[in-house]
Amino acid sequence: MISLSDHLDELVHEFSKLPGIGRKTAQRLAYFILKQPEASASQLAESLIRVKKNVHQCRICGNITDDEICRICSSPRRNQQLICVVEEPTDVLAIEKTNEYQGVYHVLGGAISPLDGVSPEQLNITSLLDRVGTVESAEIILAMNPDVEGEATTLYLTRLLKPFSHLSVSRIARGIPVGGDLEYSDEATLSRALEGRVKI
Amino acid sequence: MISLSDHLDELVHEFSKLPGIGRKTAQRLAYFILKQPEASASQLAESLIRVKKNVHQCRICGNITDDEICRICSSPRRNQQLICVVEEPTDVLAIEKTNEYQGVYHVLGGAISPLDGVSPEQLNITSLLDRVGTVESAEIILAMNPDVEGEATTLYLTRLLKPFSHLSVSRIARGIPVGGDLEYSDEATLSRALEGRVKI
Repeated sequence: MISLSDHLDELVHEFSKLPGIGRKTAQRLAYFILKQPEASASQLAESLIRVKKNVHQCRICGNITDDEICRICSSPRRNQQLICVVEEPTDVLAIEKTNEYQGVYHVLGGAISPLDGVSPEQLNITSLLDRVGTVESAEIILAMNPDVEGEATTLYLTRLLKPFSHLSVSRIARGIPVGGDLEYSDEATLSRALEGRVKI
Repeated sequence: MISLSDHLDELVHEFSKLPGIGRKTAQRLAYFILKQPEASASQLAESLIRVKKNVHQCRICGNITDDEICRICSSPRRNQQLICVVEEPTDVLAIEKTNEYQGVYHVLGGAISPLDGVSPEQLNITSLLDRVGTVESAEIILAMNPDVEGEATTLYLTRLLKPFSHLSVSRIARGIPVGGDLEYSDEATLSRALEGRVKI
């Protein structure tokens, strides 16, 4: 295919590195940028740089923050004895949206996945152990994704945390999603739902 | 919704200004950037700036180029007496992909659309008239999109170009697309296909 501009081709190439952006979409984005005033392109460019410069992990929980300690860890209204362990910062946002959880978080930064080369050492697990070692008592909720990697991480953390007698460790329930349909649920979900049945 | 980082929120906001990128996708892109090494974010940022700085319109045809005159206009193998008028640079790429067209282009930069506030004065029409005024004879192919705006532009250009006796003006054929199905063609396309029938 003919190239009209090397600079534009390069931008298309950069856009197509983003997840879910194919060559065709990347091209559309690049032409859109070309039509926009210079200010809006530099706003995006500066914002990219600023995020990489200023956003880092919270020293306590590993969540993302602009400051040293994140907004949740530094909030006086949060129950510091209730720690929900999640894989990613986006999981924190998902749980916050329920408006029900009043505890704090610990963000691992991923899940154990030998196939992707993610071992426990690369996750924020040491900092979790240090953290629970300093409290008198705490409840830990493990809220990993219900996939193979999440299950492995849950298992690994359970083994690590069980020996601490001052900790109560639980995991979030797996079952039929609200609004879901029994008929169309897969066997794994249904058997977890039966297993986790609750007395009424 | 709780905000974890102002800088990250800003990047999500910037990404969601791009066409076809909703809030959810913008968030996914921003988190992806956060996980990438700083170098790849600055590559994207620099590429954005470079495109706005260095890519501009060709002085002859209005197509995009890094130089003063675009690669097609400056090519000695192109027939300068055959000018295909298109709306956008992406249309040039589409026609180039056929590998059949050996002429040059004239890129209008859009189509006449009073509803979107695009009047003929905002398009590269004056430069087209100047251009055809300097040649001894030329064939002009109008290749606008087959929509209302494209039709209006074709009509407008036809009226402007017809008085020049040294020009032969044509428009690309409208009809059943190759691989298409007569049964499922819309009435407008079919009636254009009948109208534009070719003797065999």
